[in-house]
Amino acid sequence: MELSEEIAEKCRQIVAQTPFLTWLGVELKALAKGSCTLGLALRPEHLQQDGFVHAGLQATLADHACGTAAGSCMQPDERVLSIEFKQNMLKPAQGEYLEAVAQVIRAGRRIVVVEADVYCQRGELCYACARMLATMAVVTGGD
Amino acid sequence: MELSEEIAEKCRQIVAQTPFLTWLGVELKALAKGSCTLGLALRPEHLQQDGFVHAGLQATLADHACGTAAGSCMQPDERVLSIEFKQNMLKPAQGEYLEAVAQVIRAGRRIVVVEADVYCQRGELCYACARMLATMAVVTGGD
Amino acid sequence: MELSEEIAEKCRQIVAQTPFLTWLGVELKALAKGSCTLGLALRPEHLQQDGFVHAGLQATLADHACGTAAGSCMQPDERVLSIEFKQNMLKPAQGEYLEAVAQVIRAGRRIVVVEADVYCQRGELCYACARMLATMAVVTGGD
Amino acid sequence: MELSEEIAEKCRQIVAQTPFLTWLGVELKALAKGSCTLGLALRPEHLQQDGFVHAGLQATLADHACGTAAGSCMQPDERVLSIEFKQNMLKPAQGEYLEAVAQVIRAGRRIVVVEADVYCQRGELCYACARMLATMAVVTGGD
Repeated sequence: MELSEEIAEKCRQIVAQTPFLTWLGVELKALAKGSCTLGLALRPEHLQQDGFVHAGLQATLADHACGTAAGSCMQPDERVLSIEFKQNMLKPAQGEYLEAVAQVIRAGRRIVVVEADVYCQRGELCYACARMLATMAVVTGGD
Repeated sequence: MELSEEIAEKCRQIVAQTPFLTWLGVELKALAKGSCTLGLALRPEHLQQDGFVHAGLQATLADHACGTAAGSCMQPDERVLSIEFKQNMLKPAQGEYLEAVAQVIRAGRRIVVVEADVYCQRGELCYACARMLATMAVVTGGD
Repeated sequence: MELSEEIAEKCRQIVAQTPFLTWLGVELKALAKGSCTLGLALRPEHLQQDGFVHAGLQATLADHACGTAAGSCMQPDERVLSIEFKQNMLKPAQGEYLEAVAQVIRAGRRIVVVEADVYCQRGELCYACARMLATMAVVTGGD
Repeated sequence: MELSEEIAEKCRQIVAQTPFLTWLGVELKALAKGSCTLGLALRPEHLQQDGFVHAGLQATLADHACGTAAGSCMQPDERVLSIEFKQNMLKPAQGEYLEAVAQVIRAGRRIVVVEADVYCQRGELCYACARMLATMAVVTGGD
């Protein structure tokens, strides 16, 4: 049940080498076998027209956290691809920092189901603003 | 069934005044009552680690196209909020231009259901890379 | 945070007076403010072609548990309607008893988000076979 | 692009040999490569507490139509399993007959994405009451 250093390093590199994430400012906050937390210091360009964090940005953070959580359960020659995700917006997100905490629910041989909660930090307050339920496919070298 | 100039102008302004969209480079391509097309010239910073367009960016484009399509069916004192969306990735998106075409399926008094297809243009080829099914809430002034 | 006897009785009656549920054999196992458990003794007619519980039956149980959990948070003149749900199948369900445990995630004034886990009992074993994330609308008398 | 008689027969048998479907009264109405229509004469035991068709029954019909549409694209040694589905309820379903029309959107080597519309017939009127977007996994003999 432990995360090997080889897989952990692969997960860290994927987050660090994803242009869309680095452009947004996403950072890896925590990683364990089957779970991952990504965070993002909010900037004015992350918002939608009413001053809240864009739902698409929340989906970006949640999807990538889900993918990394699933990736942490893989063998060295496997990787994961997002097949689909569903996200419910719970409360408008407004604050200084956004975090997505993903947890694998079921790691099958070919399909991994992951759930993520998106939290927003505003001053002293930290509250849930979205939940995602996502499906990942396991892809092996030859696929 | 026609789109009034007042509502059309409101829809155009929302797209133009959404910081996350302007930062990404999103443009409004088409708007009619119940439908909307948003487009985006792809740049290196839009990609994930394998060189494909990030699924979260596709969701951003699709969600906003869905919201604008729903918004085009509103009365002047109403607006819409994304309650939830579900997106299936159909093919890896790689190319020069991304487009989301949204169409209202059912415009209820309080709930609007919208579907969007995301297309990727690569050279002469234009292919579907994602489909979204989304739910929007109608919000009136006082809400 | 307590469930009034009036609302509890309304929830119990809805389960008891839903023809599809009584025909299937569904029973209310537990009810509290924001949560609900429904159960079902499995019979041969509940299965699909491979001998597993049909995914649509799991969705029936989970959706109704979600609706009842949401209903337990309502005022006397309010009720809930399912807007949409998404269900992931985690493992094939095979056994003697099926249970759906629903928990409200966010009870807004107009929208309630609920999650449910479906469990299957087989001999000594009880395992999760599906997860649902659902959205309910709050409807008041006049709507 | 044509449906072989071998695969067609396999699809027909699966519908005919699924206990939950025969118990409900479901019949196969149409089948072609990549599409399938299932129908159901509505009976009092199919309804929920307000006299409408239960959303879970709609999901049963839609999921199975999606599975059969996906199954029609398989090779003789392959079959499909539902990974997940998402269903939006569009209008309350009340009438004499329910139909689910499923169409494959994308048939990959391992994942098939399918969409279904559920229609309700009430007197002269036939209207859409739900839409489903579903994901199926392709399973080969040895899996």
